[in-house]
Order: sequence, then C-alpha cells, then structure tokens
Amino acid sequence: MQGLKLTARSDKPRTVVEAGPLRLGAGFAVIAGPCSVESELQLLTIARAVKAAGADALRGGAFKPRTSPYAFQGLGLKALKILEKARRETGLPIVTEVLDPRDVSWVSEFVDVLQVGARNMQNFSLLKEVGKGSRPVLLKRGMHSTIEEWLNSAEYILSAGNPRVILCERGIRTFEVYSRNTLDLSAVPAVRELTHLPIIVDPTHGTGRISLIEPMSLAAVAAGSDGLIVEVHHHPEEALSDKAQALLPAAFAALVRRVRAVRSCVEALS
Amino acid sequence: MQGLKLTARSDKPRTVVEAGPLRLGAGFAVIAGPCSVESELQLLTIARAVKAAGADALRGGAFKPRTSPYAFQGLGLKALKILEKARRETGLPIVTEVLDPRDVSWVSEFVDVLQVGARNMQNFSLLKEVGKGSRPVLLKRGMHSTIEEWLNSAEYILSAGNPRVILCERGIRTFEVYSRNTLDLSAVPAVRELTHLPIIVDPTHGTGRISLIEPMSLAAVAAGSDGLIVEVHHHPEEALSDKAQALLPAAFAALVRRVRAVRSCVEALS
Amino acid sequence: MQGLKLTARSDKPRTVVEAGPLRLGAGFAVIAGPCSVESELQLLTIARAVKAAGADALRGGAFKPRTSPYAFQGLGLKALKILEKARRETGLPIVTEVLDPRDVSWVSEFVDVLQVGARNMQNFSLLKEVGKGSRPVLLKRGMHSTIEEWLNSAEYILSAGNPRVILCERGIRTFEVYSRNTLDLSAVPAVRELTHLPIIVDPTHGTGRISLIEPMSLAAVAAGSDGLIVEVHHHPEEALSDKAQALLPAAFAALVRRVRAVRSCVEALS
Amino acid sequence: MQGLKLTARSDKPRTVVEAGPLRLGAGFAVIAGPCSVESELQLLTIARAVKAAGADALRGGAFKPRTSPYAFQGLGLKALKILEKARRETGLPIVTEVLDPRDVSWVSEFVDVLQVGARNMQNFSLLKEVGKGSRPVLLKRGMHSTIEEWLNSAEYILSAGNPRVILCERGIRTFEVYSRNTLDLSAVPAVRELTHLPIIVDPTHGTGRISLIEPMSLAAVAAGSDGLIVEVHHHPEEALSDKAQALLPAAFAALVRRVRAVRSCVEALS
Repeated sequence: MQGLKLTARSDKPRTVVEAGPLRLGAGFAVIAGPCSVESELQLLTIARAVKAAGADALRGGAFKPRTSPYAFQGLGLKALKILEKARRETGLPIVTEVLDPRDVSWVSEFVDVLQVGARNMQNFSLLKEVGKGSRPVLLKRGMHSTIEEWLNSAEYILSAGNPRVILCERGIRTFEVYSRNTLDLSAVPAVRELTHLPIIVDPTHGTGRISLIEPMSLAAVAAGSDGLIVEVHHHPEEALSDKAQALLPAAFAALVRRVRAVRSCVEALS
Repeated sequence: MQGLKLTARSDKPRTVVEAGPLRLGAGFAVIAGPCSVESELQLLTIARAVKAAGADALRGGAFKPRTSPYAFQGLGLKALKILEKARRETGLPIVTEVLDPRDVSWVSEFVDVLQVGARNMQNFSLLKEVGKGSRPVLLKRGMHSTIEEWLNSAEYILSAGNPRVILCERGIRTFEVYSRNTLDLSAVPAVRELTHLPIIVDPTHGTGRISLIEPMSLAAVAAGSDGLIVEVHHHPEEALSDKAQALLPAAFAALVRRVRAVRSCVEALS
Repeated sequence: MQGLKLTARSDKPRTVVEAGPLRLGAGFAVIAGPCSVESELQLLTIARAVKAAGADALRGGAFKPRTSPYAFQGLGLKALKILEKARRETGLPIVTEVLDPRDVSWVSEFVDVLQVGARNMQNFSLLKEVGKGSRPVLLKRGMHSTIEEWLNSAEYILSAGNPRVILCERGIRTFEVYSRNTLDLSAVPAVRELTHLPIIVDPTHGTGRISLIEPMSLAAVAAGSDGLIVEVHHHPEEALSDKAQALLPAAFAALVRRVRAVRSCVEALS
Repeated sequence: MQGLKLTARSDKPRTVVEAGPLRLGAGFAVIAGPCSVESELQLLTIARAVKAAGADALRGGAFKPRTSPYAFQGLGLKALKILEKARRETGLPIVTEVLDPRDVSWVSEFVDVLQVGARNMQNFSLLKEVGKGSRPVLLKRGMHSTIEEWLNSAEYILSAGNPRVILCERGIRTFEVYSRNTLDLSAVPAVRELTHLPIIVDPTHGTGRISLIEPMSLAAVAAGSDGLIVEVHHHPEEALSDKAQALLPAAFAALVRRVRAVRSCVEALS
C-alpha cells in the first residue's frame, strides 16, 4: 500500500504493544467495560466483574463523542479519577477515549491506553498529539474509511514518534440496517498482511445488536484478531449511553471462555 | 421481520436441505469447483481434486452472468453434459447457476442444486420458476440487498411451493476497495435467528482476494455458517473468468482441513 | 470506458429514440402516470390529467417487481388492455415494465416502450430478449450499479440488435435515510460524455419523498437530462403501490411548467 | 427531525449569514479560490481572477487535512498573512479551514469565515470551539454523515452561542467510482425544509472531475442552493493539492455567468 513507511509490514516482526499486564499482538487480549463511566459504584461493579471473567484491560468513557449536543457528554475528570481507582483495585490497565488534542497530555497521566474514536480517525491534530506522547493508542477505523486511509492515520502517529498503535475494526457504514454497522472482518487479515501492528475487533459497535456479538466475536478470533473490545454493563437498560448493546457480566464471562477456546483451536492449526 | 410467513423461524426446527449425499443445515458442507466449466479435461481434473480434498458437492458455471456482452458467457448445454459426467465419476452432486426462467425446467434434469445469483436475487420471474420446481435452490444475497429483502426473495420460492432453499452470503458492495466486496458475516447469525433455512458463505466472491479466503472461511465457520462455496481451479491464471480469486487444489485441501477443525471446536462450545 | 463498442460516444451524433410522438434525445420529454395500473377508471383519469398537463408519454405498471410475494403483483394482460385504451383516447405512447424474457414479445404488441427496471439491470436474459426486439427500451440504473456496469447493460441491448435505448437514473442505495435512494445527478453529465444515448431522470424513486421531487426535477434539467419520468396519481393515499411518492395532477402540471421554463433557460446558455 | 432545537426550521425566517460583503442566504453567493495557498504570487493571481469573474469571497487552505502525513500540510501562518493581503487588495472576504480547536481563536483574527471540513464534521471539540467564537462557520457535511447527524453538528455550534452557520454539501461516499464522491443534491431541498440555515454546494469535491463541475453547479442552483464553493487555479497541473479538479479562471468566469443566469430563471419561477 503506497505511502506507508513506518506502518507497512515489510520485513519487521509484528509489533507487540504493552500497557502494564496488557500485551497486544502476543496472545489474545480482551478489553471490556461500560460505554461511559457513570459513577464510582457502577464502574467498580463492572470492573470487578470483567476482571473475574478474565478481561485483560478495562474500558470506560470519560469524554463521549455524541451526535447531539444535548446528550450525556461524559463525566470528564471525575470519570478519570474513578477509572484510576478501578485500576488500583483490580490491577487492570485503563483504556479511555480522548477527543481533544488539549486533553492528550493530562489525560495520559490517568490512563494506560488512549483511544482515538471512529469519528476522529482523520482528526489530524489529535493524531499528531497522541503521536507526540508515549501512551499506546487504540486507533479505531472510521465508519467511512478505507483500510488505506486508516493505515495512513496510523502512519501519522508513528511518524510523530509513537510506535505503540493498536488498530481496531469497529464496523463500517453501509445500506444494511439489521446491524447498526457492518463489521468488516476482512479488515483483520488485510491489516495483518499490510502492517506489523496489532489489530483488534469491536463487536459491540460493529453490530449494535446483543444477539450478534458472540458469533461475531468468535468469527473475529478465527479471522486472526489479536483481541476484542467489548461493552459490558450490569444494568444495560439504565446505561446513560449505548443501552441496547452492552453485555451482562455473565454473558461476557461465557463469551470470554468461548473466545479463548476458539483461539486455542485456531493457534493449533498453523 | 415483517411479512415473512414461510421463511420466518417461528417454532419450526431448522430445515435440512438434501441433494444426494449433500445435507445442508446438518453438519458442515463444502461446495467447490471452478467459476466456469471450460472443458471436460478442466472440469474432471478439478472435480477429482475437490473430491479428494473432501468437498461435498461440485460447482461449475454453464451460464455466466457477465457484466460485458463480449465476455465469455459459458458453454451452456455442453457444460451441463460435462457436469453430469463429473457427477457420474465422482459421486458429487452438482450446483450450477440458472439465469433464465425458461432454463429452469430442462437444466433441472442435469443438476442437483440450482443457484440463483446475486444479480438475480430480485428477478422475481426466476424466483417463481425455481419455486415451482423441486430442485434445491441456492439463493445468493444481492450485492445491494438488505437481509430483509433477501429473505423476502426466499419467501417467493417457498410460497411458490419449493421449501428447499439454501441462503448464501457473498459480500455486499461498499466503498472499500481492498476487497472486491465486503463479506457481511453478521448475516450468518442474523439469518439463523430470523429463519429456519440453512446459510452458507462464499468467501471467493465475498473477498475477491486469495489471501483473504482462508481467514474469512474460518471466520464464517465460527460465526455459525452451515457451509462454504469456494472457487477452485488447477490453472487459475488460464481461467476464462474470475482468474484472480480461485484457490489451487492444494490450498483448497488445506482450507478444508482447517475449516473442519474449527467447526469441531465451535460445535464443542455449545 | 473500456469495452463499450456500440454504446460509447466516439464521434457519433447523439441518438434520438422515437416512439410515436415521443422523441427522446431531441428536446425535453416528460413521461408520467401511476406506479401501477389499478383499473380503467384510475388509468384513464390519470392519463387525461397528465396529457392536459403536457406529458409526452404515459407510464403504468402491468407487472410489478415487489419485494414481497404477498404484495400486489400487477394486473398483467388486463392492465395492458387498459393502457392500450388510454393510448387510443389520449394519443400518448405507453411505457411499461417487463420482468420476464417470455413476456417481451407479446407485451411489445401492446406498448410503445419497454422498461427494464433497476432490479433487472443485470438480468442478462431479459436484456438479450429486449435487444432482439425493436421496441425502444428504457433501461433503469440498478440501485447498486456503477455507471460502467449500467452502460455495459445497454451494450447488451445494442449488441443484440436494438439501438433504441433510453437510460434512466433513478437513485442509488447509500447510507442516507432521509431520501429513499440517493439520486446521483452526476450520472447525467457522465452518461452524456460517455455515450450517445439519451438519458432521463426518475425523481420519484430517486427521492421517495414528495417535497424533494420538484427541486430534484429542476436540478435534473439543469444537469442536462433529456427528460423525466414521474409518478402521478389522483388519489395517492389509495394507490396499491408507492403511495407516499406520487404527485397529484395539479402539482404535476405545475412541475411541467417549471421544468420547461428551466429547460429553455439552460438551452439559451450554450 | 428529532432533537434539533436551534437549528430546526420551525417558524423562524431563513437565516442570512453575513461576512463583510458576503451575504449567505440572501441572493446567490460564489466562493472561489485554490485548494491550498501556495505562495503570494499564486494566491494574488487567483484572487484577482475570481474577483474579476464575480466571486463574492475567496477560499484558500492554510492548514490542509491530508490523508498522508507526508503530503503537503499547508503553509499555516504564512498562508494566513497572504490571505489577509489578498483581502486588502480585492476586498473579498476570506474563507479558510481550521483543523484544531487551539487554532480557532487566533485564526479568527485573520479570516472572515472558518470552515469545518468533512473529516471534522463530528470533531465535537472543534465544533464547540467555533461555537464559542463569533466568526461565521462553513460546516461541510461528512462524507459518511446522514443529514440528521450533520444538522446535529450544526446544533453543537448554535447551542454554544454562535448562530452564524452555513451548511455545505460536498458529496458522500458510495460505491460509484466515476466521480470521486456522489454529490447528494437532494440534501439541498432537505436542508431547506428542515432548517433555517443557508446551504451551499461544493461541486469540486462533490465530483472530483472537471467535466462534471459545471453541470452539477447548474443543478445545485436549480435545486435551491444559496451558493457554491469552487476550486480555481491558474496552473492546476502544478497545484500542490487537488490538481485534477481545479477550474481555470476562464472556465470559472463562464461558470459564474451561467450559474447566475439559471438562478435568475429559477427565482422567476416562484
């Protein structure tokens, strides 16, 4: 793919991105947690549950990119402090999204992995800013973005000095309405043949439908994904965002077991 | 899904569609063969190879729906006679596409399963005609079709009297260009929750890229597909159509082994 | 555009397709009428109204390509006889859709222009059949079809012997939901630079929304369209198909006046 | 459309956004200039040419959102100073894109209208920042964005305190490849019925093809657009970005004449 200098696979070994105990690109990692941090009680409850179920990292939104200005925008600093507390208690590294280049530096003090969301995949100021830092960056594919554009966005981060990029397929926008987005799993082997960076899959946003999350998670594993990022909530119907698509802790625990079983099987193939 | 009477899952057991030794919806089936029947030598060579690799049925085009009127349109009756011969020799049931309602009846004398291709998914005359017959129908999803429209097309066949329909996801058209189409694997669990019909996946047209076929085949299995339909050619570079995407027999044999291993693993999960 | 022999513009003058008083490609033509022929009274009422408003031809469906097998499928032969009567009374040439190659020959006895609908744009049997006849063919663009594929479908008709093809842009399928389809008006100048065939626009299906029909009709004229095909119904709320998008006769009459005014203005520019 | 409080049309008169002599939403306005400011000589040459041709404002990029980090990123402050000089000389108000919320305040000192580009349509930090200022904001539709999402992005700006928003349709991403994007002109009447804000069209990015720019500009006018934004370059083949789609000054002058003629005609209709 033209124009990729640092992101292209060439002869490099595959990159392993580490954040505390989380190792992306070596083995299989599961990141889980609520869409938004809503309260200390909510987050700690979910953090303990996903830890018990075998998650490798905790996700939770402090700054939410919402279509409407009148929708819940996240708790900001308060959420970051709650996330910090959850890390102290569970030992899970924290993944959270940043929306604004001005937030990159100080938010990095609180969390382990910075997420650049789908809507910001071509927010080049934000890409340059996370590229100047040293925190690992989880870069979601834009819902309208080709694989080539996505890898060029990764190239922005690497060329600014930060080699620790994790790619995340989260569904693209098509005419189909049964699923909220169309999860493009072919992006997994595509990314693996084009780059040396780890790639994970987000079946929650990729399908937007509870019943499709487990089959698409198993499919992601079989396609070669290095991990998953999944939304979990203990009271999804009361969630302040993404109500309809968060797994209950028990369903998440079952998912982790099955996902790891398929991973073992796939590893044994080669 | 509104308006589906015979296709909807309701309380029916899942349908098993049989065609000779092929049983779709019970276990896992692999259909393989060249895009087009080009000669007796070509077809028999490939038929023997896919049989040896463990395929359950042989595909081969006699009538080709080509974008250009000047492209190879298929050998027609001559191809059907060659397919018949391959069945006699290998015992594999034959799958071939029909394009014209006038061909349904006589082509049914030669083959075991009639395919309705993506471009004809809403060719309602053709749907009614294959619905009046008794041959199993492999109904591909249109590249522009929602799952709801696809299932309504199946409903045309069932309501005309033929309950033997196999659905086949083969990729939808999106803005992404790295793959020829975007294989929508979420259609597999969607179809399983909406209908009682078997569903298979076509990774060849769904990706259009050799390197993506195996990972997407494994993913299809993990997502719950009842089978695969794959293009195989012993000299892909000389093929009269779909040169760039046919597997060599050895690659196909490896694929079948891996696909069946993942299937066993997935079956053991539930 | 590669592969087009008879359809390509090259040095040919632009083709004018004639059907009785209708001349497509010379001046500006308006085709109007109901989605479906529902009764003699309904059709004659609408035929008189569109004639009075200045339409050049009457459209009306006898065979309807409906997503569901349980939806109204058209009155068939009965509709054709009603259409014939409307022609006798108004002098308007008749445009109707054919779905099945077996219907091409006998339906041609009743009508002046055969329409190949969007869902059948790559129904190659049907294309070959209308290509063997001599009736003008109104070829709609598939909702999933590139301009290149569309022109190749026209090439099927021309290469089978029938040079009388009218192209019709009717909207493509995208993620946008405010309009039923996305009317791709850039197809108008594209077709004019690539081929010598006349091109018209269908703002009814292209928008699926009454309030958008007039502005998009005016836009189509300004973009260089050779005409429009518009759905008109005197009681849209009682229509058996496409209720939500048919114009009332008075709105249609106003549309024709405005469209012709813009056409005069655009012609004066060059 | 749900959730729009300040942007919805309701009973408000249509908003007129003024920036010096530029009045958007009253009459018809043409904004023109190069993709990027490349040098003082280049910009002044083009500024004089578009002024002479009848443009109402000058566009020129100082910060360029480029897919690749290795592509020309714009001259930044140097470009802003050149733009200021062009305003002094020609009297044309200046439109330029901002990419970073940190740039909004100081860039506002140099220019008259801030553009938020398609890739940043859901960069909510940037929207809030331009909403806190008082400069008019030209908000482009995201290439993947529904009209509902776009208007919600406008709502971010209005709800932050800045009512001076100009919407700009610039093409959406579809499967069609003949044009670079698919210009969705139905967005023009849609926006006019849903909001009170002015709406303009960008035929340059909307088509990406010189030969389509004029017909689509005329179509935009006929559809009810309040204006156009067009790329012009005196040596397109030497441009540092968007080589293939900039009009020469003479072609632009002819375009302006034709566009204004169609506008007069359309205004006379109502």
